[in-house]
Amino acid sequence: MSLADKCIITAALAGAATMKSQNPAVPYTVEEFVEEAYKCYNAGAAIVHIHARDPETGLPTSSIDVLREIVKGITEKCPIIINLSTAIGIGATPEERINVVKQLKPEMASLNTNSMNFALGDWKNYQILGETVFTNTFQMLIEFAKTMKECGTKPELEVYDLGGVYNTLFVRNQGIFVEPLHYQFVWGVLGGCWLDLANFKRFMDLIPEDATWSTCGVGPAQFRGAFIAAVEGGHIRVGLEDNITIKKGVLAQGSWEQVEKAVKIVELADREPATPDEARQLLGLKGGPEI
Amino acid sequence: MSLADKCIITAALAGAATMKSQNPAVPYTVEEFVEEAYKCYNAGAAIVHIHARDPETGLPTSSIDVLREIVKGITEKCPIIINLSTAIGIGATPEERINVVKQLKPEMASLNTNSMNFALGDWKNYQILGETVFTNTFQMLIEFAKTMKECGTKPELEVYDLGGVYNTLFVRNQGIFVEPLHYQFVWGVLGGCWLDLANFKRFMDLIPEDATWSTCGVGPAQFRGAFIAAVEGGHIRVGLEDNITIKKGVLAQGSWEQVEKAVKIVELADREPATPDEARQLLGLKGGPEI
Amino acid sequence: MSLADKCIITAALAGAATMKSQNPAVPYTVEEFVEEAYKCYNAGAAIVHIHARDPETGLPTSSIDVLREIVKGITEKCPIIINLSTAIGIGATPEERINVVKQLKPEMASLNTNSMNFALGDWKNYQILGETVFTNTFQMLIEFAKTMKECGTKPELEVYDLGGVYNTLFVRNQGIFVEPLHYQFVWGVLGGCWLDLANFKRFMDLIPEDATWSTCGVGPAQFRGAFIAAVEGGHIRVGLEDNITIKKGVLAQGSWEQVEKAVKIVELADREPATPDEARQLLGLKGGPEI
Amino acid sequence: MSLADKCIITAALAGAATMKSQNPAVPYTVEEFVEEAYKCYNAGAAIVHIHARDPETGLPTSSIDVLREIVKGITEKCPIIINLSTAIGIGATPEERINVVKQLKPEMASLNTNSMNFALGDWKNYQILGETVFTNTFQMLIEFAKTMKECGTKPELEVYDLGGVYNTLFVRNQGIFVEPLHYQFVWGVLGGCWLDLANFKRFMDLIPEDATWSTCGVGPAQFRGAFIAAVEGGHIRVGLEDNITIKKGVLAQGSWEQVEKAVKIVELADREPATPDEARQLLGLKGGPEI
Repeated sequence: MSLADKCIITAALAGAATMKSQNPAVPYTVEEFVEEAYKCYNAGAAIVHIHARDPETGLPTSSIDVLREIVKGITEKCPIIINLSTAIGIGATPEERINVVKQLKPEMASLNTNSMNFALGDWKNYQILGETVFTNTFQMLIEFAKTMKECGTKPELEVYDLGGVYNTLFVRNQGIFVEPLHYQFVWGVLGGCWLDLANFKRFMDLIPEDATWSTCGVGPAQFRGAFIAAVEGGHIRVGLEDNITIKKGVLAQGSWEQVEKAVKIVELADREPATPDEARQLLGLKGGPEI
Repeated sequence: MSLADKCIITAALAGAATMKSQNPAVPYTVEEFVEEAYKCYNAGAAIVHIHARDPETGLPTSSIDVLREIVKGITEKCPIIINLSTAIGIGATPEERINVVKQLKPEMASLNTNSMNFALGDWKNYQILGETVFTNTFQMLIEFAKTMKECGTKPELEVYDLGGVYNTLFVRNQGIFVEPLHYQFVWGVLGGCWLDLANFKRFMDLIPEDATWSTCGVGPAQFRGAFIAAVEGGHIRVGLEDNITIKKGVLAQGSWEQVEKAVKIVELADREPATPDEARQLLGLKGGPEI
Repeated sequence: MSLADKCIITAALAGAATMKSQNPAVPYTVEEFVEEAYKCYNAGAAIVHIHARDPETGLPTSSIDVLREIVKGITEKCPIIINLSTAIGIGATPEERINVVKQLKPEMASLNTNSMNFALGDWKNYQILGETVFTNTFQMLIEFAKTMKECGTKPELEVYDLGGVYNTLFVRNQGIFVEPLHYQFVWGVLGGCWLDLANFKRFMDLIPEDATWSTCGVGPAQFRGAFIAAVEGGHIRVGLEDNITIKKGVLAQGSWEQVEKAVKIVELADREPATPDEARQLLGLKGGPEI
Repeated sequence: MSLADKCIITAALAGAATMKSQNPAVPYTVEEFVEEAYKCYNAGAAIVHIHARDPETGLPTSSIDVLREIVKGITEKCPIIINLSTAIGIGATPEERINVVKQLKPEMASLNTNSMNFALGDWKNYQILGETVFTNTFQMLIEFAKTMKECGTKPELEVYDLGGVYNTLFVRNQGIFVEPLHYQFVWGVLGGCWLDLANFKRFMDLIPEDATWSTCGVGPAQFRGAFIAAVEGGHIRVGLEDNITIKKGVLAQGSWEQVEKAVKIVELADREPATPDEARQLLGLKGGPEI
């Protein structure tokens, strides 16, 4: 199978908001992160996406030391690509957010592209259970991109709405990115864009022709998007960060179980999951972390 | 699982053009049709779509006798829904085409919605290997619909392009259909509309809100459409009529093998294949054939 | 001509950012607002959209006294509908923003639907000249809507991106709006969604079927959107808030000159500009302000 | 104004079906064609599209002599570009249809891209008043294109549905066209695709990036499409062939009156109508007819 037909599966292990109370497989400790990443690698993931957690409280942390331990532990265990979040969690400052890249110079890091409401909703009674303004100014987009370029880190452009896509197209003209671009389409955040074939096609049509893209989505939008990506030439992100279930009403045993499901989808679509090295080729990555 | 989450799988066993020289599993004889239908039923199909063939030559035939034998044979073997083609094949007259419904009063029959070029192309050198004008006038659409209504036959509205959808919306105002409508989206015929997320969404958006729909497609568009339908609430048609392979470069052992693959897709999408009786409920069918 | 074919023209006189240095016709004083509103009324506008300015500095102000004088002055002069901004300008607190509605109980007021970057860009060199995070949380959306309902004020739902549309659809389920809804599509803000036929159709398709809508846009998107709205059954907002020119490279003499141009567009589309009273009927307004 | 901002207005004077009984300004005689073309030229049209009529009966004719007289008469009067129909009318053979090009070697000629139902409907009672299968096979598309290439005639690719667009993309690979391509989007034929912003954007997105395009439409779709083309960079066709009115319920005095209206639309969109010579540059035409 040609490299172009391979599908890159990313596992987003924890995120900033999913807690063990929702799914006990969410990693908090370094050991849990390493173990979960290794299982995802064995299941077929080429990339793990990491938000570090405070091992005691389980809350997201901007501690570089904790994050370094996680990266080191995963790297020693397997060649999976490490993609670090520069969102970290509510309350992280811009400095803390980009510090992750400056200190650890990962192969990949997320780069958020627009400010927006980021809410948790009760979809039965249509109440807002909690919300924050997720701030990602143009200045941050530009500065983060420049730092990533200096650090040899490939940005994964997180687009939650059309505005985010247009923002990247505008600043791209400044030459701050190493081309081609790589996008993550994020579906179903309350405050962002919901999944719909027409919305999906808009995102696909608007990004540069040589850009690569992946899909992730909140709850049911996770695998719904994965099906579409599998046959439309995209890549797939799964993981407990976005969805705690493996199917309707059934908790996933871990992000690795969702990776296994993604592999089945990819194979039914006559593609194969990319190995980490194949993903490195597809995305133009520099290679393993400098730990 | 609620009925609304079930997915109706149709197997189109032969069509008018696929020959044993392309895939030996294409049925020509009554026995082959019955056997193939039965295998598809066992694999999870709720409907078989039938174009009869001359057992000697393998060419499509408008013989009611042959068709009756096929219907009878299948019906005796299993409760699968029988959906008869009113296209038959090149050269069939309008009278021959609708005669299928008049004589056999099937539960379902295809109803083509627009005239168009129907061509076979060489996609490497972009040559036209053969073509016909597939004639389906408004008058035929209207008369066929009326006959189907009289015979208790549910039309499956075959739409190959936006024009076909609009044609149905226009004549629908005459009250000639039993509502709600059921559509088959046909992708990738050379002369019609190719598969694309935006085109798919147009078809979905334009049909009446209470209509049901299925997807089928030529060659690679077959399973590409199936993936989309699986997560977008649609139904799926597979079969050697549309695609002779089970995956790139590998001949299918029969339409039943494609049904098996469709079942896997449906189940990964957290749905279940509808049984024939569940499909009858979903589509409002009258029940088994009057043979 | 039936009421349904009338087109409501809104003039947004000043906004929060356009200054006399850019176009001297931007009103700062009460007299200038009244005069400009009156000219727009005479030109064919049914609604004026108002952000008050400090008469001295020209900066946006949250002063209710100033705003009341403007409303009073306009109301004494002509029956145009007054639509007050609840955005006011950078730095206004949520309390100041909704206070406009509480104190003045206008017939209409803007209601912003999402948080976003709101930037001013240099489109030649692709630099960001200034930006702010325009904060409109779900809580604000909900509270503002409730206050408007209590005050008999019709919200004009400002949507800058798909997320904004979805936000309104989510909270609408709480019953906080008087139905049907009225939307303003805002095109071309740097940070939001740019104008494109497909984006336009997405907005049209996603809002409730009985909702009314208008278009406005930054710079060239102003009249580009107006052309589309004129033939697609929408309403039109013009004004110096969004665009300082009357045509490429030529400053508008005032918002009223843009109203005149909008009237020509509307008439060429075989529609007529709605009078204020016709607009009141179309939008279900309570009638003139309680000053 | 740069050439790229000019808008080419075509006047389709007669078509194959519009009769004097519907609008007396439809030309039948050579003199009427010449006079109407000249008025359209003076009004701002750069191109006239011609279906010849039998001067006695008013029915479409494939007579080269009549057509030559029309071409000659127009050419002597003004430098307008002449675009000859290769559809002619119901019953014309493929040989008669392309003979127009072979004999008269016009600068432009229409080239129809798909077979379809072409019907006249009663939109009040949803009855079909008449219909024909408009046959345009792949073979005809290819042969007509080759002949046009030999004759130095620029094809205007008439697309009535997505299938037509895809047909051109397929055969284009044979190298039979002089690039770039020029398309005419035809909206609202009963049997083809209806006008809708999403459909419009599909056509725009699917044609080659360097292609030019124009819009025409049946009845109300004529000017509705013109508004969209005016702001989306397209060109505009008007004329009694497609629409007998100048506004709802009012007969046009001639195609020229519709040209005048199109000019107003174009100018309000800050563009200018292209002169025939500017249109020749924009479309890469060879220059005036060889009469």
